[in-house]
Amino acid sequence: MSKNLTTRAEDYSKWYNELVVKADLAENSGVRGCMVIKPYGYAIWEKMQAELDRMFKETGHQNAYFPLFIPKSYFSKEASHVDGFAKECAVVTHYRLKTSEDGKSIEVDPDAKLEEELIVRPTSETIIWDTYRKWIESYRDLPILVNQWANVVRWEMRTRLFLRTAEFLWQEGHTAHATKDEAIAEAEQMMNVYADFAENFMAIPVVKGFKTANERFAGAEETYCIEALMQDGKALQAGTSHFLGQNFAKAFDVKFANKEGKQEYVWATSWGVSTRLMGALVMTHSDDNGLVLPPNLAPIQVVIVPIHRTEEQLEAISNQVGELVKQLRKLGISVKYDDRVTQRPGFKFAEYELKGVPVRLAIGPKDFENGTYEVARRDTLSKEIVSKEGIVEYIQNLLEEIQTNLFQKALDYRNTHITEVNSFDEFKEVLDSKGGFVSAHWDGTTETEEKIKELTKATIRCIPLDRIEEAGSCVFTGAPSKGRVYFAKAY
Amino acid sequence: MSKNLTTRAEDYSKWYNELVVKADLAENSGVRGCMVIKPYGYAIWEKMQAELDRMFKETGHQNAYFPLFIPKSYFSKEASHVDGFAKECAVVTHYRLKTSEDGKSIEVDPDAKLEEELIVRPTSETIIWDTYRKWIESYRDLPILVNQWANVVRWEMRTRLFLRTAEFLWQEGHTAHATKDEAIAEAEQMMNVYADFAENFMAIPVVKGFKTANERFAGAEETYCIEALMQDGKALQAGTSHFLGQNFAKAFDVKFANKEGKQEYVWATSWGVSTRLMGALVMTHSDDNGLVLPPNLAPIQVVIVPIHRTEEQLEAISNQVGELVKQLRKLGISVKYDDRVTQRPGFKFAEYELKGVPVRLAIGPKDFENGTYEVARRDTLSKEIVSKEGIVEYIQNLLEEIQTNLFQKALDYRNTHITEVNSFDEFKEVLDSKGGFVSAHWDGTTETEEKIKELTKATIRCIPLDRIEEAGSCVFTGAPSKGRVYFAKAY
Repeated sequence: MSKNLTTRAEDYSKWYNELVVKADLAENSGVRGCMVIKPYGYAIWEKMQAELDRMFKETGHQNAYFPLFIPKSYFSKEASHVDGFAKECAVVTHYRLKTSEDGKSIEVDPDAKLEEELIVRPTSETIIWDTYRKWIESYRDLPILVNQWANVVRWEMRTRLFLRTAEFLWQEGHTAHATKDEAIAEAEQMMNVYADFAENFMAIPVVKGFKTANERFAGAEETYCIEALMQDGKALQAGTSHFLGQNFAKAFDVKFANKEGKQEYVWATSWGVSTRLMGALVMTHSDDNGLVLPPNLAPIQVVIVPIHRTEEQLEAISNQVGELVKQLRKLGISVKYDDRVTQRPGFKFAEYELKGVPVRLAIGPKDFENGTYEVARRDTLSKEIVSKEGIVEYIQNLLEEIQTNLFQKALDYRNTHITEVNSFDEFKEVLDSKGGFVSAHWDGTTETEEKIKELTKATIRCIPLDRIEEAGSCVFTGAPSKGRVYFAKAY
Repeated sequence: MSKNLTTRAEDYSKWYNELVVKADLAENSGVRGCMVIKPYGYAIWEKMQAELDRMFKETGHQNAYFPLFIPKSYFSKEASHVDGFAKECAVVTHYRLKTSEDGKSIEVDPDAKLEEELIVRPTSETIIWDTYRKWIESYRDLPILVNQWANVVRWEMRTRLFLRTAEFLWQEGHTAHATKDEAIAEAEQMMNVYADFAENFMAIPVVKGFKTANERFAGAEETYCIEALMQDGKALQAGTSHFLGQNFAKAFDVKFANKEGKQEYVWATSWGVSTRLMGALVMTHSDDNGLVLPPNLAPIQVVIVPIHRTEEQLEAISNQVGELVKQLRKLGISVKYDDRVTQRPGFKFAEYELKGVPVRLAIGPKDFENGTYEVARRDTLSKEIVSKEGIVEYIQNLLEEIQTNLFQKALDYRNTHITEVNSFDEFKEVLDSKGGFVSAHWDGTTETEEKIKELTKATIRCIPLDRIEEAGSCVFTGAPSKGRVYFAKAY
């Protein structure tokens, strides 16, 4: 297995693109901007899905499924929503192909034109609120707490595997509430669920905050977000949760009778995370040798490689390892015993390193005699000789340690990359030299925000939830500000 | 809860449509032919998915994800495939909307026309085999055993919830093999997996067989299928597994170097089941009172309803029931304790009957005093008084018994609805009077098959795998035949 991976220092972007393909996570398809998620990458996504789904259900949500297509007219009903999505959407105009007259090719049948064009969903607020109108009559029908796992399409011009693709997989929660407070509480709760998931499951530290008006979701009154920091100092929005006010209820005429029998518009939230998280995962933990996976997300947590010269040696080793594999599986640890004779141990080591398997055990004739294993950690690349007595407990603890270590390492990096600045020169200097989140006072206007973006490519990632109220003056205009916000260049 | 369900005898088709909507399984959406799968229906589908996914993985398959869109040119590459699907597909021609000049509406932007139209996948053989070309070089890369959970679109003109919808959810397995025998064995294996799933999980008896050339999947050399029988005597194709020969490998130029280093085309299979199974589930087991769900598929397996006059009574009952709920959950049984005070017990009984909850417990002050529960079975509508001692074991056994009973009942019905006929008059008579599978000799020609369909609406559902080789003469033409095939009217 020849890796030939570009290093992060050489070209971070190239390193990422190569790694995603070489580690068998995903690849480009014959369809512009659409990716193929390969089995190894999909197995990681399945682990994310399972955990998120568990968390959603634990907080009272149920799954459902709504149509892929959205009639064009639905889009026009919420003004800012159409502005946000109409410019990059896939439009279905016909429902049949036919053979050309010369019989040599197939073409769109002009007689099969749809009366109204259908948009492939870029997000499902409109079709879902059109449905909720039928589901909601009184306060007794509320809240509706629904989630959908689905594919969506946004016609992005410049695409990158996982980070920005024309089609991607995601979940979108859509909830309906009787009161404003309840809807806001739901939006905040789901931001917290996402943060919990990112930190405790993916080992990715995040900043919780809300977006400026300029960066809000098209149709939202408040967008909560979690923002992560990649190893190149660029931020990545890892999840958003929107308080939609009564915007969609008004656009689709969804009212309910309150306890007093009065008709009111319903309050809404929506929230989502996507296969983009796969990109965040790769860019947070991996290194120049390949993927580094937190044990929680690793399809294979432990790989065991035998080293042998004779068949007798392999048989003896395999017998012993068979027992260990059983014990580990009983504990819910996923183990692979790689006894392929077609590949050498060195090849296997390189392969599992590239694929980010957290723990690798090797056992040769010497180890067998001594009753030991060689245990290698993917995160630190360190090795240790461990006695076979107690190896199960050792591995169990090691997996936990690796999970914790990866989070701590990413947290340390993130924390040293939040820099307070008090002048625009300093702002630009920090952004260029070390990147990360630049914590600065801002005058609260979209104008300044856009001017700064134009000059530096940095956007306001969020207004941190836990920010300290402090009087200051805008780093760009000098106008008064009530507290700092986080700027960064972002994916 | 007013049911007002049309009875099966009155109008079977209407009964089905009403039941699907009233039991909260699914409903029509604002998009022609596309359904909304409601949370209760989706929870059943999730149970099917989980079990199938487990069975696929146990037989060595991995999940992956391929693009939603298929370039038009891909379709033309496999001749019979395009014939099968081009006539009913959603075609994406543009990638942007814009505001009209008068600013009053949004319309397709003529400047954003795609160079090549994209088809929303009706099935993914073409895009997948275009990808497999990059994955396969030598026999060492084989077999590829991949499955995909996805949505697909077929522009059906007459649609019915679950049974025939423009968009539906399914899984599609796509495997690649070095030899013909191995591919055939895979196709047969997956038919057996489907049959096992249908019978042992869904309690739906099925006939295993293969399709005639005329009824084969577009692009297949052999289509294996499982056929179920609904309560109105019509058959329903519940799953198919195709041996695709080298057709797609040739169309997409997918070759591998065999052990001798010679280039050969790869052998293929594909296999799928869809949300259509939800329709089969409803039509196999349900009755005039509503859904009847096999315990394996019931989102709520046991519901407990308290009956009380005073708050003290409710509290005492709730305390006792709380303990029972815990014990049942520990055994993996899903229980709902419905102590809503806004609804009367009678309302609740009707609701859970409509929704097919397999076991209902009621407990009133008398029961509480006597240390008993009233246990009602949904399948037989019978009730029994059961002592609270041993109630846990009783319920556990009852759930198993219901699962077995539903299968046995459906099997008895199916078995009494396979009728051997030896003349075309008899054929028509049986078809009109009792329906079901009509087992008849057929001369093996597509011409006869189509003629019979034209005259009776019955199609050949399958050539049963276990058919007895016996000389006979075609029920229609009198020409020689080697064995009987199953005809039926079908969904």
